[in-house]
Amino acid sequence: MGSITLTAVEGIPMVKEGDDLAALLAAGLEKTGIKLAARDILVVCQKIVSKSEGRVVDLNGIRPSAFADALARKWEKDPRAVELVLRQTNRIVRNDHGVIIVETGPGWVCANAGVDESNSLEDDRAILLPVDPDASAGRIRAGIRARYGVDIAIVITDTFGRPWRDGLTEICLGISGMNPMLDLRGSTDLGGRELQHTVVAIADELAAAAGLLMEKSSAIPAVHVRGYAYEPFEGSAKVLIRPAEADLFR
Amino acid sequence: MGSITLTAVEGIPMVKEGDDLAALLAAGLEKTGIKLAARDILVVCQKIVSKSEGRVVDLNGIRPSAFADALARKWEKDPRAVELVLRQTNRIVRNDHGVIIVETGPGWVCANAGVDESNSLEDDRAILLPVDPDASAGRIRAGIRARYGVDIAIVITDTFGRPWRDGLTEICLGISGMNPMLDLRGSTDLGGRELQHTVVAIADELAAAAGLLMEKSSAIPAVHVRGYAYEPFEGSAKVLIRPAEADLFR
Repeated sequence: MGSITLTAVEGIPMVKEGDDLAALLAAGLEKTGIKLAARDILVVCQKIVSKSEGRVVDLNGIRPSAFADALARKWEKDPRAVELVLRQTNRIVRNDHGVIIVETGPGWVCANAGVDESNSLEDDRAILLPVDPDASAGRIRAGIRARYGVDIAIVITDTFGRPWRDGLTEICLGISGMNPMLDLRGSTDLGGRELQHTVVAIADELAAAAGLLMEKSSAIPAVHVRGYAYEPFEGSAKVLIRPAEADLFR
Repeated sequence: MGSITLTAVEGIPMVKEGDDLAALLAAGLEKTGIKLAARDILVVCQKIVSKSEGRVVDLNGIRPSAFADALARKWEKDPRAVELVLRQTNRIVRNDHGVIIVETGPGWVCANAGVDESNSLEDDRAILLPVDPDASAGRIRAGIRARYGVDIAIVITDTFGRPWRDGLTEICLGISGMNPMLDLRGSTDLGGRELQHTVVAIADELAAAAGLLMEKSSAIPAVHVRGYAYEPFEGSAKVLIRPAEADLFR
């Protein structure tokens, strides 16, 4: 198995709508002194993906519904931000303690429908999740391949909370070039016993690993990973969503 | 921030009760060619910790209660294993689809009270969680310090599932030498806006990163981490347990 090296990609500027992320990442990699090789992985935070795709909303243009107003009053939030959350929401899973946990259109269960609560609201603007993070990852991968002629995998991450455990971790929201799951069922342990129930969410483990280097100030929005062995695979982060009928907590 | 290197520690033998883990890890590090330095981190899987501490139970000595028998019949499980789970259980959080999610004595919420379902049942034996994983981590850290004169951090991990997201990931169960949380509240983002709600569960991110190298066959029960900047701190994994009153999902 050997060794995995994670390197913070330096020098990526503030991203704006229409920016070519593959080009910005390439410039950052060069500045950092990394020469991409096949089977490398680039982990990219959702925020710069959303910004490049124009998923930035001016809160001044949002008129809150009566329900958004009521929730905002109760929890002392910005009613326009609450309205924005509700517009990304399929279903409210829990709403208590000032927290709104929702199921989003694509099926992600998370706080505030992924509308960033920490460092996204600049000048009354809020940042939404990419419409299709797998497709976003695919576009970055294609841009890298066109530029360098190597096929790598792209993991797009966001910072989520979770039940039962305090603190946030990076998770995988979109992927291209690898399977987010490693299925060990059918293999055997050292005692020769067959492993059961062992499907590892490696994309979430890669996201979390990269999270150690992604400064929350957003100065480091991408991390390069070398040495993790994987088989090339088209991949989709949607398999990380537990099917509703098998989920005991929604 | 720079770079983090994760290296699989090779050559750790099958562990048995009474084994000195610090000595086994030291031998493994030497075999792998790693010379420990201050501020390194060793991530160690729960299974070898539990084995060294004699947390192995012979199922043949377990007499299931009527309740364990009933659950086992319903879900086609071994009634002795179910009895063992119930004996580690403070409260059943959910019980459906053949899954028993419980709150354990120390407050961890997890499936089967951490009694390993995959590769622990060898010859009718089951492996329980360490009684006090922070103390286990402290003993390994002290053993390493006595041997090498350097202070490192120890993270003990287990493989947990989670609501909403499919697949398992490594999480932190015990820690010594560092704070499992990185509290960014009060710092500012690039736009000068104060970060809110941003406490990162770095110990879980370290555990997940190491999980990428811990083969589930248990051939790699430890991973060496170098390059992650942290301040020395006594630390306890118990701060990763969300207080029940703030937890919307138990």
